[in-house]
Amino acid sequence: MKSLNVGIAGVGRIGKIHLENILSRFPNVHVKLVTDPSKEAEEYILGKNLNYSQDYSDILTIQAVDAVILCSPTNTHADYVIQAAKAGKHIFCEKPLDLSLDRVKEVLEVVEKSGVKLMLGFNRRFDPNFLKIRDLVNAGKIGEPQILKITSRDPGPPPISYIKVSGGLFMDMAIHDFDMARYIMNKEVVEVYSRGAVMVDKAIGEAGDIDTALTTLIFEDGTMANIDNSRKAVYGYDQRLEVFGSGGMAKVDNNFPDSHQLYGPDGIHGALPLHFFLERYTMSYINELEAFFNSIQNNEDVVVSGEDGLKSMKIALAAKKSVKEKRPVLVKEIN
Amino acid sequence: MKSLNVGIAGVGRIGKIHLENILSRFPNVHVKLVTDPSKEAEEYILGKNLNYSQDYSDILTIQAVDAVILCSPTNTHADYVIQAAKAGKHIFCEKPLDLSLDRVKEVLEVVEKSGVKLMLGFNRRFDPNFLKIRDLVNAGKIGEPQILKITSRDPGPPPISYIKVSGGLFMDMAIHDFDMARYIMNKEVVEVYSRGAVMVDKAIGEAGDIDTALTTLIFEDGTMANIDNSRKAVYGYDQRLEVFGSGGMAKVDNNFPDSHQLYGPDGIHGALPLHFFLERYTMSYINELEAFFNSIQNNEDVVVSGEDGLKSMKIALAAKKSVKEKRPVLVKEIN
Amino acid sequence: MKSLNVGIAGVGRIGKIHLENILSRFPNVHVKLVTDPSKEAEEYILGKNLNYSQDYSDILTIQAVDAVILCSPTNTHADYVIQAAKAGKHIFCEKPLDLSLDRVKEVLEVVEKSGVKLMLGFNRRFDPNFLKIRDLVNAGKIGEPQILKITSRDPGPPPISYIKVSGGLFMDMAIHDFDMARYIMNKEVVEVYSRGAVMVDKAIGEAGDIDTALTTLIFEDGTMANIDNSRKAVYGYDQRLEVFGSGGMAKVDNNFPDSHQLYGPDGIHGALPLHFFLERYTMSYINELEAFFNSIQNNEDVVVSGEDGLKSMKIALAAKKSVKEKRPVLVKEIN
Amino acid sequence: MKSLNVGIAGVGRIGKIHLENILSRFPNVHVKLVTDPSKEAEEYILGKNLNYSQDYSDILTIQAVDAVILCSPTNTHADYVIQAAKAGKHIFCEKPLDLSLDRVKEVLEVVEKSGVKLMLGFNRRFDPNFLKIRDLVNAGKIGEPQILKITSRDPGPPPISYIKVSGGLFMDMAIHDFDMARYIMNKEVVEVYSRGAVMVDKAIGEAGDIDTALTTLIFEDGTMANIDNSRKAVYGYDQRLEVFGSGGMAKVDNNFPDSHQLYGPDGIHGALPLHFFLERYTMSYINELEAFFNSIQNNEDVVVSGEDGLKSMKIALAAKKSVKEKRPVLVKEIN
Repeated sequence: MKSLNVGIAGVGRIGKIHLENILSRFPNVHVKLVTDPSKEAEEYILGKNLNYSQDYSDILTIQAVDAVILCSPTNTHADYVIQAAKAGKHIFCEKPLDLSLDRVKEVLEVVEKSGVKLMLGFNRRFDPNFLKIRDLVNAGKIGEPQILKITSRDPGPPPISYIKVSGGLFMDMAIHDFDMARYIMNKEVVEVYSRGAVMVDKAIGEAGDIDTALTTLIFEDGTMANIDNSRKAVYGYDQRLEVFGSGGMAKVDNNFPDSHQLYGPDGIHGALPLHFFLERYTMSYINELEAFFNSIQNNEDVVVSGEDGLKSMKIALAAKKSVKEKRPVLVKEIN
Repeated sequence: MKSLNVGIAGVGRIGKIHLENILSRFPNVHVKLVTDPSKEAEEYILGKNLNYSQDYSDILTIQAVDAVILCSPTNTHADYVIQAAKAGKHIFCEKPLDLSLDRVKEVLEVVEKSGVKLMLGFNRRFDPNFLKIRDLVNAGKIGEPQILKITSRDPGPPPISYIKVSGGLFMDMAIHDFDMARYIMNKEVVEVYSRGAVMVDKAIGEAGDIDTALTTLIFEDGTMANIDNSRKAVYGYDQRLEVFGSGGMAKVDNNFPDSHQLYGPDGIHGALPLHFFLERYTMSYINELEAFFNSIQNNEDVVVSGEDGLKSMKIALAAKKSVKEKRPVLVKEIN
Repeated sequence: MKSLNVGIAGVGRIGKIHLENILSRFPNVHVKLVTDPSKEAEEYILGKNLNYSQDYSDILTIQAVDAVILCSPTNTHADYVIQAAKAGKHIFCEKPLDLSLDRVKEVLEVVEKSGVKLMLGFNRRFDPNFLKIRDLVNAGKIGEPQILKITSRDPGPPPISYIKVSGGLFMDMAIHDFDMARYIMNKEVVEVYSRGAVMVDKAIGEAGDIDTALTTLIFEDGTMANIDNSRKAVYGYDQRLEVFGSGGMAKVDNNFPDSHQLYGPDGIHGALPLHFFLERYTMSYINELEAFFNSIQNNEDVVVSGEDGLKSMKIALAAKKSVKEKRPVLVKEIN
Repeated sequence: MKSLNVGIAGVGRIGKIHLENILSRFPNVHVKLVTDPSKEAEEYILGKNLNYSQDYSDILTIQAVDAVILCSPTNTHADYVIQAAKAGKHIFCEKPLDLSLDRVKEVLEVVEKSGVKLMLGFNRRFDPNFLKIRDLVNAGKIGEPQILKITSRDPGPPPISYIKVSGGLFMDMAIHDFDMARYIMNKEVVEVYSRGAVMVDKAIGEAGDIDTALTTLIFEDGTMANIDNSRKAVYGYDQRLEVFGSGGMAKVDNNFPDSHQLYGPDGIHGALPLHFFLERYTMSYINELEAFFNSIQNNEDVVVSGEDGLKSMKIALAAKKSVKEKRPVLVKEIN
């Protein structure tokens, strides 16, 4: 890999992961500047002997910087992307670009004109399990895919304060599954039927959101997907996928910290799945950065485009509308 | 078990199973007469040294007969049940009672008045795996159930001639899953949203049916179920169930002929699931007869009542209507 | 299957299994007489409307009887087999023929001269899992077998009174594994090294036996097997097998009552294996009788011959000698 | 972690792993010098902007260096350890210290006198699966351990040139399993019985070694272990362990690249285990360095001492003697 210079905006939970992955796994990628307005971030960054600034725009003025990694809060994404595009920097941005469809379209237009690459952080596309399923499907190992089933449950809900600005379960959580559905099936979704409920915490309902959902997706050729979401699985992060086709079926299970089985007088006992996304998706975070850097260096299309983000967002909005109106909603109704 | 005398109508595939289970497993249950109009059936029955008649009504005239086992074609069920009820014989009847909702209601009224017991052949309720799930749910092991997921796929479609008189995928095949959903959740379904497609065989579509479906059920308390059905899984009979709740999750896999794993240079290879219902549900057929005989001898309620059949039938009709009208359908719309 | 007449000697635990399997599964096999000196047996047999006698020799005087099924105590086997052979009756005998090697040889000579068939009850050869492994090995799916590993643990020890007359762990329990080793590898064992210990119950040691053992078998071509035995696995009956070869590896797990997995906050929980041999080997008991009846009716060799019993017995005696003398023992030392 | 300075000798396969793990995972551990006489190594090291020398002794003259990491060929270990000890540097050394027992004892005496820490690279002790088993055993979850079973098979044999200097299968390969047996059981081995064979490649036999082995270990309290080794499992690296005790049984399986299952008309297919030690033991290499650095910084005992190496070496020599003399060998015979 040739040398590449990056700047990073935001070192909250996900920003730290990307920064540390770059430092340990990408010796040819040089972190020129890290920005984050918080005091805590400053200490963390200086502790790593990295250049620090409170101000994101400082990254864009460094000519040597090839790309920005945006891990700042969602409400900064649109502005930051536009600024980076205008500065001619390639962009890796955590999803979503914005909670407003119009704003996302506007951002994508700017990026389009600028000619820089924009990749979105749908990291699960890079998980070894899901990649294996995609390979099997693409290799025709299950014949024509007919039914996709995704289980996607979190170990616990985020704080209510986060719920309030998250855009809701579909925009915040299920959007990963909508992207996965499009990715595995390699087709566009045309219709969505979702049912939602508040089963985990009444406060989530009071905040205007749901915490449990069951969604049916219909693809352009009539194939179907089912997704179930819950904000709280007491046994941990549950991320499974199964795709059934004319020639067979392929599925993947969760990942586990170890494979022990303990046989005792009361039954057989095994480990719980890896607890949450940081543990489960360790490899996918590394793989997605590698894909981003490769797409810059080889001047290839990014694996997750802004358009991909827009499409999953429309599915999420259709799901939201479906719950509200208690009917199947066509994705083309969303505009 | 006290002595019990039964007559059996119909010794096609399922009739033979029940007859042979009685002969080998229920030494105190005496088969007084077996009826079936076909020549082949006559030979089979006489070969077992059993009394034979072409005419079902002959069973009803034998005073010593306590109960009838109805395994004759679906279009005879309603008449035979009514006749048996009027003759004061307890009834075990394969599902469905009839394809007409009105006719089923009429039959149930007659049975109600007669005071005899009527049990329907939803055999899966007696499968050790599903029973275990029900026990776990009832024992509160998963807390409050929130999402039920059923996978139900046949190894291959029945002949088109059968499809035409079957009542369709929902009435013929998914009805088992609707019954299972009510049984596991112990609640009534109030709303159904189904999507159907013809993906297996165009001839099924030409016969007015579908061969692939995805169904969302909403229960009275807002909990949800998802069921996927296919008439053709090339790897065999696929019957799995998973129920997720506030306190955990329980699931069961398919049954297999053996547990071998063969490790070779190309991967690890294991056996396919037991091929179809005769192999998979061996025990459930025995268990359901035992439950029927017990309910007679102990004068207890049957485990699967006519009312259960009626309710699952309404769900199936709602599913059918949902596919047709492309909208969620309330079960109470069906009458 | 043509009609076949049998007499049964002994209806203890295993005798009842064989009797009931014949009654329910083999309609053409007629039980002419059952003998057992105990009062309890008399009631049980008469309750089944079968002919009863206290005296085994009464079976042999019934000319119509084709074969005897010997389930009486071990110390009667040799005499009963000799008497049956002289009376021209085919013989199915529970193992072992006798605890004395000389006596076994004598019995086999008599049987040889008489020309009747003698089959021994090494039922595990008929278990679907082990049969599958044998099929895979014979089909060359693992190339040349090199290492065989058998796990064989009981859920709990028998009473000390039984231990005392059992011939010891190797003759009573591990002999099944020795037979299995010969069966799977299709080769003879030439050398045995066993280590034994008393870890379960001191009383077993005081009775002159061991309750835990680890055995290495060497086959004629240098291939090797390892067997571990324990009289007490608190989690139930543990019967697994794995065979490793130049082209791959095949293994089978225990059998389970159901396939449930319960995910909770403390881990994933599954069912224990089927508890003991009656549950685990249900099918193998039926299959072995079928094989015996078939060998009579088709005049074919039995699947488990007296010679098979003799060979496993020699391995068991070599194992015993190995533990005593703390050295590997050649099977040919045993005579 | 406080700052620590190290020098590394040897950057062959395993040296590279340790070096790269230090660079990416231990920001406070500074690599002051790397030595390796080969031209290729020079390029590799300079490419990483590290100080390079051909000469190991150069490390020892750097006062700031706290510890050496010895990854050079086996025949250098003894000398290098002695030199480091005399120079007052802590030592991490790949196993074995030497192939001569006397030389090892001599080395350990020097280390003892010097007061530096010496840790040996039995990395499997740090594998998450085996650690879990050890934790379960230590927590009493299986009661008193009685039987340990280890499966340890390589995907393919090393070159004959390596075989010739390796010390043989027991010293080179099984020694890891002997260490594991001592580690899991927390007891010393007193007696060894091994059978060896040449089944993989005649050339291995011609080089005076074996490629397949079955070993019985007896611990000081009479508990037992069985280990099977093969130089060639066509399905990849097979590293499993099971420990049976008075209160239960615990086991771990191999690790896999993904958890996919592909259901097709011919069966269910899954991935092979991770291919070899670099893939399987990724985490254990990181964890063992961490343990070494911690033991220095906290002045604690190392997890794998020189004495541990000596004890496993004696077991390996006893195994070798056992194969040669075809008898169980007491470990105390080895001196």
